[in-house]
Amino acid sequence: MESILAHLRNHPHSYHVPGHKMGRGLPGEIGQWLGVSGRLDLTEIPGLDDLHTPEGAIRDAQQLAADAFGAEETYFLINGSTAGNLAMIMAAIKPHESILVPRNLHKSVLNGLVLAQATPVFYTPEVDETFGIATGVSVETVRRMVQAHPQARALLITSPTYHGICSDLATIAEVVHAAGMLLLVDEAHGAHFAFHERLPQTAMAAGADMAVQSTHKMLGSLTQSSMLHVQGPRVDRVRLRKRLQLVQSTSPSYLLLLSLDCARHQMVTEGRARLEQALDAVEAGAEALQQLPHLRLLTERDLGGEFRLDPLKWTVDVTDLGQTGGAVYQRLHERGYTLELSDPQNVVAIFTYADERRQVERLVQAFAGLEATEGTEAVADPLPTNLFAKGEVGRAPAELERLVPLHEAYEQEAEAVLLPEAAGRAAAEMVIPYPPGIPLIVPGEVWTEDLIAHVSRLLAAGVRFQGAEDAALRVVQVLKK
Amino acid sequence: MESILAHLRNHPHSYHVPGHKMGRGLPGEIGQWLGVSGRLDLTEIPGLDDLHTPEGAIRDAQQLAADAFGAEETYFLINGSTAGNLAMIMAAIKPHESILVPRNLHKSVLNGLVLAQATPVFYTPEVDETFGIATGVSVETVRRMVQAHPQARALLITSPTYHGICSDLATIAEVVHAAGMLLLVDEAHGAHFAFHERLPQTAMAAGADMAVQSTHKMLGSLTQSSMLHVQGPRVDRVRLRKRLQLVQSTSPSYLLLLSLDCARHQMVTEGRARLEQALDAVEAGAEALQQLPHLRLLTERDLGGEFRLDPLKWTVDVTDLGQTGGAVYQRLHERGYTLELSDPQNVVAIFTYADERRQVERLVQAFAGLEATEGTEAVADPLPTNLFAKGEVGRAPAELERLVPLHEAYEQEAEAVLLPEAAGRAAAEMVIPYPPGIPLIVPGEVWTEDLIAHVSRLLAAGVRFQGAEDAALRVVQVLKK
Repeated sequence: MESILAHLRNHPHSYHVPGHKMGRGLPGEIGQWLGVSGRLDLTEIPGLDDLHTPEGAIRDAQQLAADAFGAEETYFLINGSTAGNLAMIMAAIKPHESILVPRNLHKSVLNGLVLAQATPVFYTPEVDETFGIATGVSVETVRRMVQAHPQARALLITSPTYHGICSDLATIAEVVHAAGMLLLVDEAHGAHFAFHERLPQTAMAAGADMAVQSTHKMLGSLTQSSMLHVQGPRVDRVRLRKRLQLVQSTSPSYLLLLSLDCARHQMVTEGRARLEQALDAVEAGAEALQQLPHLRLLTERDLGGEFRLDPLKWTVDVTDLGQTGGAVYQRLHERGYTLELSDPQNVVAIFTYADERRQVERLVQAFAGLEATEGTEAVADPLPTNLFAKGEVGRAPAELERLVPLHEAYEQEAEAVLLPEAAGRAAAEMVIPYPPGIPLIVPGEVWTEDLIAHVSRLLAAGVRFQGAEDAALRVVQVLKK
Repeated sequence: MESILAHLRNHPHSYHVPGHKMGRGLPGEIGQWLGVSGRLDLTEIPGLDDLHTPEGAIRDAQQLAADAFGAEETYFLINGSTAGNLAMIMAAIKPHESILVPRNLHKSVLNGLVLAQATPVFYTPEVDETFGIATGVSVETVRRMVQAHPQARALLITSPTYHGICSDLATIAEVVHAAGMLLLVDEAHGAHFAFHERLPQTAMAAGADMAVQSTHKMLGSLTQSSMLHVQGPRVDRVRLRKRLQLVQSTSPSYLLLLSLDCARHQMVTEGRARLEQALDAVEAGAEALQQLPHLRLLTERDLGGEFRLDPLKWTVDVTDLGQTGGAVYQRLHERGYTLELSDPQNVVAIFTYADERRQVERLVQAFAGLEATEGTEAVADPLPTNLFAKGEVGRAPAELERLVPLHEAYEQEAEAVLLPEAAGRAAAEMVIPYPPGIPLIVPGEVWTEDLIAHVSRLLAAGVRFQGAEDAALRVVQVLKK
């Protein structure tokens, strides 16, 4: 930040990109909104360093971030945690090497497997049958997978999950390292953990080799800005930096970079106090919410002893309202309360350091109002509740047969078939209900009748899909025979 | 833009990412600068569509852009033209297929070749020996390459270059298509061409199959936002969209997306008038600059008949001032005039639609002041002028021997050796003076004594390097024997 302000204090004249020339030419409404802040949208001019070979301000900012987040080295990401997951996997895995990955991985992790030409070995997380969601990964599962696949180079785990559920990373790190593997953590939803002791442990503190955090999700940086943290002797840093250069723009946004530095500074100076206040407010709000009939809030007690829960995430089962999560999400949205995601059974709300008692109480009231007035509105279709409990979301896909290696399937020619006619064919695309971005099928695996029925139910429940060419899934892409 | 404003008019409450909660929690100085504009930093909530499966506002904005830029389809890019080049190459080339590429390609194009596992066949652009820069690609070169390599799937060309030099894309398109190949254009520096008839023809108008434009460079969108334009029957659109998903964040910045839409709107409504005024001012300024002694401005006449020049780019040879381009760049920067780039012989300034007579005249005055006062300052070292003319930058690297295929070299283990000891070893990294980002050596090619001497001279002249692990190039990474 200092280096940018120093440049601006000189009242510089720009004969370089970007074309808006320090905000002067910024177009129309975005120009009006951004105003003078358009001057921050700078580029690699003297004094402002270079993300791809940092030697000055960006190097210093990254080192301050490493100190704040408990890493040895931190890399700023301007292509989101997507870039971090891609580079982390490509750095750890050489072509045709295998890696242990959760079935409920993020799309960017799957894309990383394709780019790395890695051989994925899928493991299955635990499932909470009441809420119908995948929870964490048990140490027992990790131990079993590591023993069964000693040739794997690394284990990748998502922790926390979209619902804020954290696996026991410290023990998992011990098991994985004892087997000579790297532990890679998709920690997209856990950027705030380092700044309050009432939050779960960070991946770095637990001993992971690399962790990717979406700074923009739970902290204050701008959307699409993230960090990759690294420590220890197992990561080839040269290889990692080369992969980061592969997947990140050579014209990085200084707005995004600056926001990462400011978010770090904010947390170091006032993070604990703001999180304390948010945690107090959210815990009080959770008690109030639990008094409301027809709503059920996911708590750490629901998860058994092994997993922890980020209290700033509320997963609320709305089944007893007689409505789908999607319908409740939409109703709240129309009233001005936009939540993070829904599935057929639940809605999920996210609180951050930026929330105070007022925001929490307001949402509890919105839930209360919902409960009181909508209970009588009948829903015509039977509710597709608890799909996970039936083993159709969390489990069945892990048992899909694979006909073609992942990265080869990605290259083969595809054709469109009507969804009901896909049975027996190898998928040519991912089918991902989003959020939370968990693929139901990945390229090279075979469509089953069960999966087709499941997808049809999700569509009927209003779930949106990513990944597939036809977002409405009337047709799906399969590999040509 | 409309959809975002509609959302904001509802005074929504955010229980979703990003963590700053509609700007409320934006940290410190970036929060102060952005102010209310932080509210624009939204995410995929209802009504705001989804970049990866656009069905609403983003789809409409992309279609409006396609109409404005003369394409059939346009894809918004939030990871810069880097993402466009990566996806364009991966969409056109399957593993081990070959592609004709210029030696002076952008680093992101080379990265695209690695990710696509493509077999590059390098061709050499023409060189202007007076200014010591690569210029355009002759139709004759294209014809010869296409005949010599009929198995190639595509020809990729950079037009305009960093210096604004445009090849004859219309004729090249005919030659390339007659050979059954695709024409891919890295048009990063030509996003403004569609909006004034005094500017060179766009790649789309010339008949290219795909073209990538850095909207942020010559138009008014925010840094790191670009567009990929597509037309015609030769591009597999499904394959293209899948590759775009591989290399772009699943949490795209709505600030960047919005700025693309606003930049398009600005050009459609007032682009021609603003460009007209800028062109008039720049042409008058060019005449004034040409009156100054010791400075030489690159003009279209210098390029021979085949190439065109973007008048908004000024390449100024400063050799006769008795100083390097780097020294002149630095001196102008210290006086508040920051130019786009320098090489040992030249400096380059960029004007855009956002510039008026005042900005142009100010720069001419700065050049005049420089000339009058600095002519007497002796430079100790002999000037490394006109390196291209000696065939050491533009030509020699094209003749480097290749020991290892590009994408395999990218994977092999590397070790560091002192630069003088690299002779005879296969490179494990790119060595790229930046800007303009043209690799001198790429992984798998063999270091020569000539190249080592050349790199040493560039270092002595103060040129900065990207790509190499040691930015100072005391050591370089070579493949282990």
